[in-house]
Amino acid sequence: MPGNTLGTMFRVTTWGESHGPALGVVVDGCPPGLALSAEDIDDELAWRRARDTRVSTSRREPDRVEIISGVFEGLTTGTPISLVIYNRDVDSSAYDDLKNLFRPGHADYTYLHKYGIRDRRGGGRASGRETVARVAAGAVAKKVLDQHGITVLAYTLALGGIRAEKMDFEEIYKNPLFCPDPDAIPRIIQRLQEVKESGDSVGGIVEIRARGCPAGLGEPVFAKLDAMLAAGLMGIGAVKGVEIGSGFAASDMLGSEHNDGLGPSGFLSNNSGGILGGISNGDEIVARVVVKPIPSIEKEQQTVTENGTPTTLSVKGRHDVSAIPRIVPVCTAMVRLVLADMLLQQKAIE
Amino acid sequence: MPGNTLGTMFRVTTWGESHGPALGVVVDGCPPGLALSAEDIDDELAWRRARDTRVSTSRREPDRVEIISGVFEGLTTGTPISLVIYNRDVDSSAYDDLKNLFRPGHADYTYLHKYGIRDRRGGGRASGRETVARVAAGAVAKKVLDQHGITVLAYTLALGGIRAEKMDFEEIYKNPLFCPDPDAIPRIIQRLQEVKESGDSVGGIVEIRARGCPAGLGEPVFAKLDAMLAAGLMGIGAVKGVEIGSGFAASDMLGSEHNDGLGPSGFLSNNSGGILGGISNGDEIVARVVVKPIPSIEKEQQTVTENGTPTTLSVKGRHDVSAIPRIVPVCTAMVRLVLADMLLQQKAIE
Amino acid sequence: MPGNTLGTMFRVTTWGESHGPALGVVVDGCPPGLALSAEDIDDELAWRRARDTRVSTSRREPDRVEIISGVFEGLTTGTPISLVIYNRDVDSSAYDDLKNLFRPGHADYTYLHKYGIRDRRGGGRASGRETVARVAAGAVAKKVLDQHGITVLAYTLALGGIRAEKMDFEEIYKNPLFCPDPDAIPRIIQRLQEVKESGDSVGGIVEIRARGCPAGLGEPVFAKLDAMLAAGLMGIGAVKGVEIGSGFAASDMLGSEHNDGLGPSGFLSNNSGGILGGISNGDEIVARVVVKPIPSIEKEQQTVTENGTPTTLSVKGRHDVSAIPRIVPVCTAMVRLVLADMLLQQKAIE
Amino acid sequence: MPGNTLGTMFRVTTWGESHGPALGVVVDGCPPGLALSAEDIDDELAWRRARDTRVSTSRREPDRVEIISGVFEGLTTGTPISLVIYNRDVDSSAYDDLKNLFRPGHADYTYLHKYGIRDRRGGGRASGRETVARVAAGAVAKKVLDQHGITVLAYTLALGGIRAEKMDFEEIYKNPLFCPDPDAIPRIIQRLQEVKESGDSVGGIVEIRARGCPAGLGEPVFAKLDAMLAAGLMGIGAVKGVEIGSGFAASDMLGSEHNDGLGPSGFLSNNSGGILGGISNGDEIVARVVVKPIPSIEKEQQTVTENGTPTTLSVKGRHDVSAIPRIVPVCTAMVRLVLADMLLQQKAIE
Repeated sequence: MPGNTLGTMFRVTTWGESHGPALGVVVDGCPPGLALSAEDIDDELAWRRARDTRVSTSRREPDRVEIISGVFEGLTTGTPISLVIYNRDVDSSAYDDLKNLFRPGHADYTYLHKYGIRDRRGGGRASGRETVARVAAGAVAKKVLDQHGITVLAYTLALGGIRAEKMDFEEIYKNPLFCPDPDAIPRIIQRLQEVKESGDSVGGIVEIRARGCPAGLGEPVFAKLDAMLAAGLMGIGAVKGVEIGSGFAASDMLGSEHNDGLGPSGFLSNNSGGILGGISNGDEIVARVVVKPIPSIEKEQQTVTENGTPTTLSVKGRHDVSAIPRIVPVCTAMVRLVLADMLLQQKAIE
Repeated sequence: MPGNTLGTMFRVTTWGESHGPALGVVVDGCPPGLALSAEDIDDELAWRRARDTRVSTSRREPDRVEIISGVFEGLTTGTPISLVIYNRDVDSSAYDDLKNLFRPGHADYTYLHKYGIRDRRGGGRASGRETVARVAAGAVAKKVLDQHGITVLAYTLALGGIRAEKMDFEEIYKNPLFCPDPDAIPRIIQRLQEVKESGDSVGGIVEIRARGCPAGLGEPVFAKLDAMLAAGLMGIGAVKGVEIGSGFAASDMLGSEHNDGLGPSGFLSNNSGGILGGISNGDEIVARVVVKPIPSIEKEQQTVTENGTPTTLSVKGRHDVSAIPRIVPVCTAMVRLVLADMLLQQKAIE
Repeated sequence: MPGNTLGTMFRVTTWGESHGPALGVVVDGCPPGLALSAEDIDDELAWRRARDTRVSTSRREPDRVEIISGVFEGLTTGTPISLVIYNRDVDSSAYDDLKNLFRPGHADYTYLHKYGIRDRRGGGRASGRETVARVAAGAVAKKVLDQHGITVLAYTLALGGIRAEKMDFEEIYKNPLFCPDPDAIPRIIQRLQEVKESGDSVGGIVEIRARGCPAGLGEPVFAKLDAMLAAGLMGIGAVKGVEIGSGFAASDMLGSEHNDGLGPSGFLSNNSGGILGGISNGDEIVARVVVKPIPSIEKEQQTVTENGTPTTLSVKGRHDVSAIPRIVPVCTAMVRLVLADMLLQQKAIE
Repeated sequence: MPGNTLGTMFRVTTWGESHGPALGVVVDGCPPGLALSAEDIDDELAWRRARDTRVSTSRREPDRVEIISGVFEGLTTGTPISLVIYNRDVDSSAYDDLKNLFRPGHADYTYLHKYGIRDRRGGGRASGRETVARVAAGAVAKKVLDQHGITVLAYTLALGGIRAEKMDFEEIYKNPLFCPDPDAIPRIIQRLQEVKESGDSVGGIVEIRARGCPAGLGEPVFAKLDAMLAAGLMGIGAVKGVEIGSGFAASDMLGSEHNDGLGPSGFLSNNSGGILGGISNGDEIVARVVVKPIPSIEKEQQTVTENGTPTTLSVKGRHDVSAIPRIVPVCTAMVRLVLADMLLQQKAIE
């Protein structure tokens, strides 16, 4: 099954390349009768755009969606919703110098080996730009979740080696880093500027929380809720790891510490991250993903050309210092997509 | 899509409960003409069984598979391969006391909320026993990988807070812990015994390596190789996190450190874990999973009954101190299943 | 996707060969809490067995199912239901003479060309015996449909050139031909006996009606209800055609004749066969399938061996004169499977 | 699984409504390196457009496709191919009078019952206009088939009660009816004009032949080649029946007549229609579909409004007398889509 479709009952199929005329997504299986406007989607896309010139030098895309099908008189009809976002600020000239070599950390090498051909302009399909379609689809999934009182919140937990300690969720959407700790923000920004000046890039961690999720979502044994979240989140370009609840810390814990006891009003702790046996337990769902440093850096790197000749590479062009914070709304979108799908699947057996 | 099927072209569907008459799996899509015997599968199942009474008090199952279809005169025919493993050493009496309460850390609560009914005997479908079917299927996948020179190796990287430092891969199958570091083994066993005596359990980390994988496997953008590995591995009962290559360490790395440069003879490092843009790059594939402490412990825990009355629970019965090492062959199996599926999918476009 | 799985939310995966130890099916996605016993399934299997020695000389199989998973204390649990039917009356010796030649009208030639290998015993996977697993799964689907008041009825509409004219549905299960016209039965039996004596076989038509189906089932545009019924029914071995409602007669009709007008109490006719735009309209669903003559005949036929040498074939052994009436319960089962799946899918968006 | 996706390895997802801004399709899984231009697709779309004013009064759409992704420098890249066809000649005013009533023979009633809402303009998603996306996708599938020397030909076998007797395949693309019998054409046109004048419509039969198909395509037991063709063809709006090879005529045949014997150079006849046991046998694949009369007729029909009030309907507007010949290229497209998918699937096990 070619890999551009996600979900069973709430299904999204994305398409488009970084430097093609447009990117888009078909959302199939959205329940009928939901109010949906281009503005609803544009609002989500806005969060994904670069927002602080101190940390981002990326291309400027207005990112306005067109809803071409599946909505009639402002309501979803149950038929496929086709969303298109046109690329406006495309400049492929920067890639001319790169067209015959493999950029380290990028998918140039693997796309060529898989397909025998590759779209060199801006990474083609492997570009982070592809995630604009996911965020658009996530905005539709949000409508489904809204109906059931489920909300998803993602934020920067660590960036450039600096970790948010204070968890002030009100703060998240007020700063360009989606960081819940106001004290950490100036330190992170300073760190990002230093790294930028040194021609390098940094990684970080995003945390995602879903609230209001009823107990019962997830399809054991292979389509467990945590398995589907892992696939969804690991499927984001720069992500190298996913953990749920206690995550890797569980390695050093005892069963008596890790088990979440139960009392009359519910679970007494949440090391499970809201998922037991692959099924939501009604508690908050907590996931974290690690984001690798952006591979496009100005610092010189060793590489080879397509015919194997050694060379060096210093990427100029328009690049962020980190995929965070841009990736934060993408994480939100992926969790929304998975939850919407699981929610509709659960309805089938109820 | 109910969740008991994994894969697109190499598809496995598992069934069975811990205390039912049998567990099994249907493997659909296995290429024809491969030599396959019950012994081939039994050999893999043997690795999964408890092997050291110092660390395991689990039930004793001979675990002999019956191949009921799909093989004719010793060769696979291309039709579905049905494998059945009968349960022999079933003793449900230990569960009589537990039948109306929710065991912390187990799926009792979530299965009841999802389905409105649950098989209380030994965790039913949510039992670790279910993985016997995965390992059986993995033995079939191994036949497919063998043809292409791909091998998968999993081992204990950390257990009970003690980490293997030396990587002597020859050692792995010689000790009951699947641990590559001979010096760590006695320390781990001592730690496990202490924990066992205190009525508790421990977590750990399993590392998996796949060698010989050609560049080009993985189906962007949602069915990326790393995304499918994440789903497969996170779908194992006790796993709370999955990472590829550098994994969570990438959070604190610079791009210039993380990027794997290229030379004429290939990649100069392997922070990517053998996967770029969701596609294998021909290098070794490296993944790690964290395994939570086994939830069944003798230490008293707080919980409630099905009708909400607070109570306490001390699990006696037959339980391991850790899901490791038993889970090691399961990790091997899951990686084999994913790779076999991706390999067949790639053939479609070549 | 290997082809042994049917359905999205109510999914069945069958396995097994004619002369292997057993055949079976995994039913995944059955809603929990339904009463299900082996007897429920055996009752359906009994209808499928040969019932009249005047028209059938087939092997005698007791066909008792074993439910190996998914049912606890008599109720479905929501986990996969594994059903196994052991073969008892296997006699492969009759196939020794046939093992190197292609039987006309059978799948010998195509299985060998597809897989490069074939199980020659009794047609292997391509045998009509495979349908026992479908009927078993259909008995589970029946439980789902029962809950919604949907019933499926199939019967012999034509056999050996003789067509049922009277539609007495009470009669169907009272005669060995599943024929609704008592007057046609003796004529059909006489015809079958003649054909049998001449060493030949005959075709016929089965009609299927589903009642109580709510309006709204079917997933346009590719998974329309009629498209899924067509796939399910055409996927039965001997079927060469499927029609819905007016079917091929529509070729010679005018729009003013064919359109089903509407009145205050519903549709005024049913040329649509209960399906409009691929979605059930609440009226009776009517489908017909044509069944080709059984290819195993005593009359001498021209064929070649696997290495291309011309030869002739006269099939002795145990064979029916027609796939009808045995195929009637298989048609029932396939329609039940499709309707159960569509019903669960529809619940997801309601 | 919402129904707008077809295929496993060659997957198409269509979207769009009759009177929306555009219709389109995402083709996922197309092998890389195939030359593909908008002209290739437009050529196929041209066949689908109305071509003879004597038999058609339909809207005029230029039907030019835009390839928005998946093609780089004229070659497919292996990434999803997004195709969009904008609607130009949309006039919804004719539907204002119809918006609260159910048009007999149309999907108005069922869409409203399924989704609780419907796009009334021109039938919305249920319009024949939707097939433009299928034909566009079929043009991509053609590229895959071309590589393997497989050709698909569809033509009008019967229309308005007049059957083509002579099979001159050179003739098909030379006349506006896609009819292989030059003698039948004037009689059919006369019949269509008569029917048109009487405010009525007619049905017919389309025959499809695929040549050059290797033995081995099709995935038993549920995804048989004939089952998938049946689903694909029955999933076209006006189709009420599908038959393969002998089809419904098999009902009255003897086994000795129906069986295709084999000689040293292949099959001696083709009653099987090129498919045995659900797998292609290397012979020509032959399928037929029956097309119901177009439901929109000027003749007065009885119906009800959405709130159940009886009324009558006489459809004026722009409508053809028959879905044939327009549906002929759609049948071609569906068979191409199925064959391309089966071809890629077969490669996975070879």
